[in-house]
Amino acid sequence: MTTNRHVPASAPTISEVAKAAGVGRATAARTLGGYGSVGAETRNKVEAAALRLGYQTNELARSMSTGETKTLGVVVADIGNPFFAGVVRGISDYCENRGYNIVVLSTDENVAKERSAVELLRNKRVDGLIVASAAIKAQSADHISAAVKRGTPVVLVDRAIRGLDFDTVLIDNRDAARLAVAHLISHGHRRIGFVWGPETASPPVSVSELLAAAENALWSDGERLQGYLAALFESGIEFDADLVTTTPKNREDAERGVARMLALPCRPTALFATEADATIGALNAIRRAGLGYPRDISLIGFDDNPWAGVIDPPLTMVSQPMLELGQRAAEQLINRIDGNRAEHSVDVLSTVLIERSSVTGPLNAGE
Amino acid sequence: MTTNRHVPASAPTISEVAKAAGVGRATAARTLGGYGSVGAETRNKVEAAALRLGYQTNELARSMSTGETKTLGVVVADIGNPFFAGVVRGISDYCENRGYNIVVLSTDENVAKERSAVELLRNKRVDGLIVASAAIKAQSADHISAAVKRGTPVVLVDRAIRGLDFDTVLIDNRDAARLAVAHLISHGHRRIGFVWGPETASPPVSVSELLAAAENALWSDGERLQGYLAALFESGIEFDADLVTTTPKNREDAERGVARMLALPCRPTALFATEADATIGALNAIRRAGLGYPRDISLIGFDDNPWAGVIDPPLTMVSQPMLELGQRAAEQLINRIDGNRAEHSVDVLSTVLIERSSVTGPLNAGE
Repeated sequence: MTTNRHVPASAPTISEVAKAAGVGRATAARTLGGYGSVGAETRNKVEAAALRLGYQTNELARSMSTGETKTLGVVVADIGNPFFAGVVRGISDYCENRGYNIVVLSTDENVAKERSAVELLRNKRVDGLIVASAAIKAQSADHISAAVKRGTPVVLVDRAIRGLDFDTVLIDNRDAARLAVAHLISHGHRRIGFVWGPETASPPVSVSELLAAAENALWSDGERLQGYLAALFESGIEFDADLVTTTPKNREDAERGVARMLALPCRPTALFATEADATIGALNAIRRAGLGYPRDISLIGFDDNPWAGVIDPPLTMVSQPMLELGQRAAEQLINRIDGNRAEHSVDVLSTVLIERSSVTGPLNAGE
Repeated sequence: MTTNRHVPASAPTISEVAKAAGVGRATAARTLGGYGSVGAETRNKVEAAALRLGYQTNELARSMSTGETKTLGVVVADIGNPFFAGVVRGISDYCENRGYNIVVLSTDENVAKERSAVELLRNKRVDGLIVASAAIKAQSADHISAAVKRGTPVVLVDRAIRGLDFDTVLIDNRDAARLAVAHLISHGHRRIGFVWGPETASPPVSVSELLAAAENALWSDGERLQGYLAALFESGIEFDADLVTTTPKNREDAERGVARMLALPCRPTALFATEADATIGALNAIRRAGLGYPRDISLIGFDDNPWAGVIDPPLTMVSQPMLELGQRAAEQLINRIDGNRAEHSVDVLSTVLIERSSVTGPLNAGE
C-alpha cells in the first residue's frame, strides 16, 4: 500500500518576515526573539507578518539566549508499566500547565541504564530531572548527586535512596502495608504470607536477617516489608520466615513462592501481595492449588486497577495516587527551578485501602 | 520533613575549558562544537580539559548549527492508558537505539488539544511527529497536513484518518474483529452482541445507518465494527440493531448497553467487547444480571493483559502488538527523516486471538 510522495514546503525565515513587514532583519529578529526594545507599531507589523506567513518562534534560539529549555527529564523503570504510565501522565499534565515539556526514558531497574539516561538528559540541557531511581544506596547514585552539584535540580519520585537527601515525593509504603496487614489481622488472621520479600540467595531465618536483606532492596519494597513486620509486632504475632517469599520479582516466581507457602503443613490463612505481578502470581497459585478466595485464603493486593473490581470475587486492594505522585513531583521540581524553595522536602502521599470481597475470617483455612 | 539546602556548583564554561587547555576561547568553542577545523594536538588538549572539568557539549548549540534536535514528538490520547503506554515504550526503545529522544503529549481524544500539541512540538523544532490522531476526517486534520507541508514528517500510529494519505502503522482492526466474531460463530453462536458501536443520538435500525454513523467514529472503532458485520455476513447471519451498543465510550455506558441487551426477550448468547473498558463493563453487566460466562453467555474481549488470564474463568482476548506498533512507527519516521524513503507506506500488523475459557457453545443461553 504505497502512494504519492509529499513535497515539504520550507518554513519561512526571519528575513522573509522582515521583508513582508517592511522592516530590517535585525528589527524582525529582535521582535520575534523577545529581546531588545521595539516600538509598539513595529511590533504589531512584524507579528502580523509572522502570523500571515506562519513563522514560528524558534524555541532553540530562545533557549540559547535564556539558558532554559523548558524541558524536564523523567527517568522511570518502565514507561509501559501502568503504574509509571500513571505517574508520567501526572507529570505531563502538570508540566503542560506550567509550559514545560518532558522527555521520558526507561531504565528497566538497571542502574547503568539510569546513569546513561541521566547523562543524556543533562547533555540535552533539561532544566531539571524527575527520577524513580533503581539505585539502592548513595554509593550507586553518584550520577544523581553529580547532576544536583552541577546545577540540575532533581526530584526523586516513588523511591528515596538510602543515605541521600533530595527533594522526594513518595507514597507512605510502610503505612500502606501496615494498614493492609492490620486489616487482615482484624479479621482474625495470624498466619499472613508476604509476597514479595527481598531477594536472597538463601531464605532468611530471622527478622534481623530479613531486614538486612531488605537494605539491599528498592526503597519501596523495604518499606512495605517493614510495614508488614510492624503490623505483626503490634498484634504480638511471631514472625515466621516461611511466610515471606524471597524469590526474584516476577509473576512466575511469585506464583512459585505462594505455591510453596500453600503446601506448608500449617499454611497461611491470608496473603498480602505488594505489587500487581505479585497479586497475579498469588491468584494463579491459589487457583492451581485448587483453593478459592476468600473461602480458603484471604488476599489483599497492591496497585488497584479496574480489573481487580471485576474479578470474581472482587479484590481488596491498596490504591496508589499515581497521578498525584507525578503532579507533586513536577510541582516540586518546577518550584525548585524557579528558585522558590531553599530547603529539601519530602512529600509523603497516603494510599487508600479499597475494600471489596477478598478478605474474610480464617474459618476454613488450613490451621 | 525538611532538611539542609544544597549548593549547586555552576557548570564549567567554554572559557574555563579554553583557559585550562591553554588555547583561545574561539578555538575551544570550535573544538567542542564540532565545527571549523582544529589540529589534532589542539583537539586532544581541549577534549582532555573538557573531560577534566566535566564540560558537556551543549546539544542546543549543535542543534542550532545542524537544524536537527534529534527529538521526536509523540501525540497520543492518554500516556496513562496501558495501551498507549505500551506503544510509547516501543517508540522509546527504538528511538534510544537510533539516538533520538521523544517528547510525549496526551490529548484525551480532543482534536483541539491535539492541534495545540502538534503546534507546540513543531515550535520545539522536533524532527518529526508520531500521532495517534483523534481526527475523524481530513477536514479536522489540517494541523497534520500543515506540519507535513512545512517539512515536519508525520507518521500516524494506531489510527488512519479518512481521506488523508500519510505514513501509517496500524493493527488490522477489521480482521481482528472478524476473526473473533467468526470464532464465536464457529461455536454455534448466531446472536452476538457488539460492545461498543458508534455513538449515535438515536439507535441505528439498519446496517447502512450504522455504517454511516461509523464514518464519524475513530478509524479503529469503525474498522472493528466492519469486521463484526463481515463475519455475520460471511455466515449468513442477519444483522440485528438491538445487538450493537451506541452509547458513549466508557465503562459505565458499556455496562448499561450490555444490561439492555441481556434484558431482551431473545438475548445474545455471546458478546464481543472491542476495548478494555468495554470488556470490564460487559463483565459487570453479566454479573449484575445474575449470569455466568461462558455458561450463560460467551465473551471475547480486546486488549489482552495479565488480569484477563487470572480472572476465573480466564478470558479469551484479542492481543495487540503494542510495542511493535511503537517500534515500527518510530522506524518509519526516522527513515523518513533520514530521507531514505520517498513513498508513503501503510504497515498493518496482525493481532492474535488468545483462546482461554470464556467461549463455549450457546447451550444454555436465552434462545
